[in-house]
Amino acid sequence: MNRAINHTHDPNLRSWVESANQKGTDFPIQNLPFGVFCHREQTKTPHIGVAIGDQILDLFTCCQLGLFEELPEPLTAACRESSLNQLMALGSWATEILRDRLSLLLRLNGSQSLPEANILVPMAEAELLLPANIGDYTDFYASIFHATNVGKLFRPDNPLLLNYKYVPVGYHGRASSIILSDTSINRPQGQQKTAQESVPTFAPSQLLDYEMEVGFFVGSGNELGQSIAIDKAEEHIFGLCLVNDWSARDIQAWEYQPLGPFLGKSFATTISPWVVTFEALAPFRCPAFARPEADPAPLNYLYSPVNAQLGGINLTVEVMLSSAQMREQKIPPVRLSQASFKQMYWTIAQMLTHHTSNGCNLRSGDLLASGTVSGAESGSQGSLLEITRRGSQPIKLPTDEMRSFLEDGDQVIMRGYCEQEGCARVGFGECRGKVVG
Amino acid sequence: MNRAINHTHDPNLRSWVESANQKGTDFPIQNLPFGVFCHREQTKTPHIGVAIGDQILDLFTCCQLGLFEELPEPLTAACRESSLNQLMALGSWATEILRDRLSLLLRLNGSQSLPEANILVPMAEAELLLPANIGDYTDFYASIFHATNVGKLFRPDNPLLLNYKYVPVGYHGRASSIILSDTSINRPQGQQKTAQESVPTFAPSQLLDYEMEVGFFVGSGNELGQSIAIDKAEEHIFGLCLVNDWSARDIQAWEYQPLGPFLGKSFATTISPWVVTFEALAPFRCPAFARPEADPAPLNYLYSPVNAQLGGINLTVEVMLSSAQMREQKIPPVRLSQASFKQMYWTIAQMLTHHTSNGCNLRSGDLLASGTVSGAESGSQGSLLEITRRGSQPIKLPTDEMRSFLEDGDQVIMRGYCEQEGCARVGFGECRGKVVG
Repeated sequence: MNRAINHTHDPNLRSWVESANQKGTDFPIQNLPFGVFCHREQTKTPHIGVAIGDQILDLFTCCQLGLFEELPEPLTAACRESSLNQLMALGSWATEILRDRLSLLLRLNGSQSLPEANILVPMAEAELLLPANIGDYTDFYASIFHATNVGKLFRPDNPLLLNYKYVPVGYHGRASSIILSDTSINRPQGQQKTAQESVPTFAPSQLLDYEMEVGFFVGSGNELGQSIAIDKAEEHIFGLCLVNDWSARDIQAWEYQPLGPFLGKSFATTISPWVVTFEALAPFRCPAFARPEADPAPLNYLYSPVNAQLGGINLTVEVMLSSAQMREQKIPPVRLSQASFKQMYWTIAQMLTHHTSNGCNLRSGDLLASGTVSGAESGSQGSLLEITRRGSQPIKLPTDEMRSFLEDGDQVIMRGYCEQEGCARVGFGECRGKVVG
Repeated sequence: MNRAINHTHDPNLRSWVESANQKGTDFPIQNLPFGVFCHREQTKTPHIGVAIGDQILDLFTCCQLGLFEELPEPLTAACRESSLNQLMALGSWATEILRDRLSLLLRLNGSQSLPEANILVPMAEAELLLPANIGDYTDFYASIFHATNVGKLFRPDNPLLLNYKYVPVGYHGRASSIILSDTSINRPQGQQKTAQESVPTFAPSQLLDYEMEVGFFVGSGNELGQSIAIDKAEEHIFGLCLVNDWSARDIQAWEYQPLGPFLGKSFATTISPWVVTFEALAPFRCPAFARPEADPAPLNYLYSPVNAQLGGINLTVEVMLSSAQMREQKIPPVRLSQASFKQMYWTIAQMLTHHTSNGCNLRSGDLLASGTVSGAESGSQGSLLEITRRGSQPIKLPTDEMRSFLEDGDQVIMRGYCEQEGCARVGFGECRGKVVG
């Protein structure tokens, strides 16, 4: 199920795009994530692009110049689209072939002579757009540490519900309000009721929070009534992005029984613009989370040896915060947390297989998200709800401002990257959003 | 907010389409619901159509013949589309103008001379399709009788949660698995655990159920961050249909805590093909449900005098069941329940306004559903869960077969209609689905 490591991952590869060779870049030639952009100054037509250093390779222009001529026709047709859906629909064989071709094209001393026309657009001149038309959005709850942290706040003696270790718990989220990094977040209004109040009020949320999540886009889908076996699951995933599942804790707490989160979440969900393919992540695959001995094994439909051995991803995620006052005083963003995606109780393949186990159809471009990525240790919790113990232990910013939850002007910046010995760094870029009142 | 009653509602109107004048038809000239179809024999291109008696008026052909020449250009363009989304997006002014034109065109002794080309397609020769591309699907829980009936089964001493009378409780459903009437339902598999079992099993659902609901399609939408005031809400609704929210009670019971229903619902949701416009329903508007004195008033953002006086709809809904054995023995479907939509605790306008109250954007073609329509009396419960008290009181079919939940071969048929003194009957047609193993 996992994609093989090949020449495109060679850490010694260099690109003729100089900025792609700089230490610390998120987008070296080993990454090649896909996105959709338009050129601010020139045409406003969205094109598919690939991030390389501080540049974007314009796939539409590549097609026009005949640089993809040897590729199968459905693949070049998909590269001319204004969203990634068609490319996603082709499945993992297509991403693999295309990635090979792009790697060769961008390689220093590649066999290819460079075209005269400019196939690169500086990121600084591009407006990034949502990478796909997202039909349905599903959010999971796959970190046992997050589930336990949150559970402790509400049920100190019984933090984890009985189904957690059997079911990759998830719920349907709102697709229409998924927005791209750098779109401002309006503080939502909603019904809320504290334990002290006898009736609810309708007011702006006072307990606005973020959740650091990892998202994954469906590549080729499945028909209604068909399920996807665990060992086939990753073939149906195109790639990953970062997700900020903004949450209004006061609205959520009052509304969520018995049918789950609704308006406490649906006002906005932010995603990062670049979709890192499963192909690029091949060197960073690792065993699935090691369940404690006392825990039950996954049910058969959620178990395979390959998933157990390679279902995890050694991906580090971080959350940074910058208040308006910090920006005024030129104080850089402060890091609130750092965690690893390999600590998730459920793998991506398990989430996808579970989702289709009742015959539910997934469509190309659908987005699934992991739920908050939190670790066991202090400093690894992916939401303010956890960090501040529901506001009871506020944190102090470098400006001496205190934070229980987000204030107007606060900017949340999420980062993700894979780094390990003997591999080129593969980064996700940033997922940013600023709260406005 | 409510649409006015005008000449198109005149109960004395007759059509030159004879079948539209027959007593008991769902589709007299006073109704004119919209759908999408293609001709089985001829072109496979989907056209927008309007149901009239046992015929479909083909709006594409009407455009081709110049019958809509005096209509505004955006409206005729929308009538040439292969889904209702563009027509929905234009808003209620457009539906009103178009409905006027259609009424005149189909009227016996109307001012119009009939075109020679055939603008009618017999329903028997048409394949009906989903009326819109549904971006997001939201399911509410707006019947206090349903919420209480279900609550009693789980919490006998505290059936109704504290938030119910304040919050029009809802959750996001799955858009991809919304299917049209007459599509078969595959019995879903999933995790389930009875109280007696210590660990869950993965198996076909044994507690498969239907839920009788009313759906409503969003017409013109709203921008992210903007909410829709209660008195403007109905202007953003295009029309209504019937919804069968199939539910696997065993899967649902095990998975739903703490994030709500997921795989217990997402395997299929069936809708009826004809969208009955709010314009057609104008004569059947009635006061919103009269809350008992002890109940709190709706919060300000959910209250308006007009909604209180006219927010309800005098719409009767029925559920019929036909088992394989009944069909073999030529026994007609048996009625399981009948209820009125005017008994809903929350109005359609309240649900829509609540949905946008946090700034969540609705898009044209989005589907919202009411939740199960149940009344207070025996015989008015819209699900088997309620009728059989979670299977503990099975019902007997005319064949002496017993039913706790649905068996393979069972066909569920839902109907809806508005009937009252001095008005022509406005029907919804049927929403049908058969369970296959």
